[in-house]
Amino acid sequence: MRAGQLVVDEVPDPTPGPGQVLVRTLACGICGSDLHTLAHGDLMVELSDEAARTAGDGMPSPQMMDLAHDVVMGHEFAAEVVELGPDLVDGSGNHAVGDVVVSLPVAFGADGLHAVGYSNLYPGGYGELMVLNDMLCLDVPNGLDPDRAALTEPMAVGLHAVNRSRHQAGQAAVVLGAGPVGLAVIAALARAGAEPIIAADYSPLRRALAATMGAHEVVDPAVEPAIEAWRRHGARSPMVVFEAVGAPGMLDAAMVDAPRGSQILVVGVCMQPDTVRPMLAVGKELNLQFVLGYDLAEFAETLRRIAEGELDVSPLITGTVPIEGVPGAFAELAHPDAQAKILVRPA
Amino acid sequence: MRAGQLVVDEVPDPTPGPGQVLVRTLACGICGSDLHTLAHGDLMVELSDEAARTAGDGMPSPQMMDLAHDVVMGHEFAAEVVELGPDLVDGSGNHAVGDVVVSLPVAFGADGLHAVGYSNLYPGGYGELMVLNDMLCLDVPNGLDPDRAALTEPMAVGLHAVNRSRHQAGQAAVVLGAGPVGLAVIAALARAGAEPIIAADYSPLRRALAATMGAHEVVDPAVEPAIEAWRRHGARSPMVVFEAVGAPGMLDAAMVDAPRGSQILVVGVCMQPDTVRPMLAVGKELNLQFVLGYDLAEFAETLRRIAEGELDVSPLITGTVPIEGVPGAFAELAHPDAQAKILVRPA
Repeated sequence: MRAGQLVVDEVPDPTPGPGQVLVRTLACGICGSDLHTLAHGDLMVELSDEAARTAGDGMPSPQMMDLAHDVVMGHEFAAEVVELGPDLVDGSGNHAVGDVVVSLPVAFGADGLHAVGYSNLYPGGYGELMVLNDMLCLDVPNGLDPDRAALTEPMAVGLHAVNRSRHQAGQAAVVLGAGPVGLAVIAALARAGAEPIIAADYSPLRRALAATMGAHEVVDPAVEPAIEAWRRHGARSPMVVFEAVGAPGMLDAAMVDAPRGSQILVVGVCMQPDTVRPMLAVGKELNLQFVLGYDLAEFAETLRRIAEGELDVSPLITGTVPIEGVPGAFAELAHPDAQAKILVRPA
Repeated sequence: MRAGQLVVDEVPDPTPGPGQVLVRTLACGICGSDLHTLAHGDLMVELSDEAARTAGDGMPSPQMMDLAHDVVMGHEFAAEVVELGPDLVDGSGNHAVGDVVVSLPVAFGADGLHAVGYSNLYPGGYGELMVLNDMLCLDVPNGLDPDRAALTEPMAVGLHAVNRSRHQAGQAAVVLGAGPVGLAVIAALARAGAEPIIAADYSPLRRALAATMGAHEVVDPAVEPAIEAWRRHGARSPMVVFEAVGAPGMLDAAMVDAPRGSQILVVGVCMQPDTVRPMLAVGKELNLQFVLGYDLAEFAETLRRIAEGELDVSPLITGTVPIEGVPGAFAELAHPDAQAKILVRPA
């Protein structure tokens, strides 16, 4: 990402410092957040910075990228260790050259904490080489192929959203939007015993994937709103609804549909300022829980589930491209009818 | 309220139906919601109607008032029973002529469910006479004077907000705005063992009242933001913050101030559409709980606390006016520096 455009170019190889490893990207998913960032990079930096400055809990936040300089995006990756940092060559680290790993997309060193893929210093997985922290890497077990291992990150987002919700086993749940985030939520809900899971998406492909991931009822909102399907199933209030579209207006629309006492999980990231009608939410005593990311346990649990065959993510992978194909893949994902997750294979 | 204006005029006396009593208003508080309704009546009706239509839990909602016809507002009242409904004259009801009562401001009969004070059929407490349901009236005990009994309704709002929050005894709490709603929240927090309670208001009078109601630290936001006082007290994240101002922009401002993982209770009612930045809330995983009203138990508990002297509401009563003084009181409350709760004494 250079001056708000995607370009394919040579950049200097990153170098692993103490506690770090150099890895070669095997597969990296293209995330909707990257599309948002390309379109609204200034807003993304400004709001991430404001959230970090006001987080107020003493936890370090990743340094913000500077959009005036190059950023190699990509934070959903599986990679192979190709070189160990200077203090790890004696074998004192957790990983060896040749290991296939995934990692939380953060890296830290003497230069501070950084978000891999949203950093000027730590290139992400759309490039051939990355630097990761040895201690944050997890070995990919069971000979799991890198394509599916790369889905650990987005699927962990769904698990986290469900963990943060009030949803209880046996309760119905509604998922608005069956893009990668919505599909990850559906998979986590199915695992958590949600019934019925009602998903809504305008795209036939995504509706089919929603059913594959465990949705019991999938609707085209142009034909039947999710709330109507929810009622048709006789589900009982309060509703737990996951807003996984992240476009302006979706929050207010979810607030209109949500029955009294419902909880709305805001999983889709709307970068732009958005308008809501507080009195509508007051009148129904709604609860809005905004969620982000996952913790290390959720990330590791998701990798385990994929590797042990409990969670089959292969249907979500609808395309793969080489580095040169990234700009085209971004363009294609802007019209989501035909794609769910496109993987970049830089090598 | 006639054609968007307050007028003082004679209207027909209401008549109690079966199960109902006719009461004479002794005291009725002027609520900020009434000021909002006078200014934004169309929005209030539209959004209340939309919330009711989409509540979806089968609970009946009060019929909406028609702003083209007269509305006698006033829903924070104490009153004296002056006549019993036709089926109650045999003494089969709960109340007798001469009883001083308070009631949830709802009434129902063959004509459906109505919000007393926001209805064309059921006049509220700014008028001399009201019709209430015998079974929803509570006797005012201990010879409690009607002025303080009339504070039951607004104080119950604060108890409900605290009950709906994640706040736990011993935890800090922040209250933005020390109008009647904020003051009710402060009193409920003090009762719940919150420490410290940090309140913010631009008005010196309201800051003094906040301290009287139990706030441990009261700040003028022009001098020190509430979040700074919260930090100065070394309070630990996550924060529980009660937004009791209800003006456009306050929600986003609270989202800026709230540390990671905090809960914002939206107690103040902003009638207008409002702009928020979802990504800011996502970045800090904030929770927004919108609250409304109280339940019967909270209402009865609040009356008991006032009547038994556990909760002294008399400092909140900063003025009383006759019917003729209501328009002037509304004008005065629009500049809240000099007033907290003004009571109407229609008799």
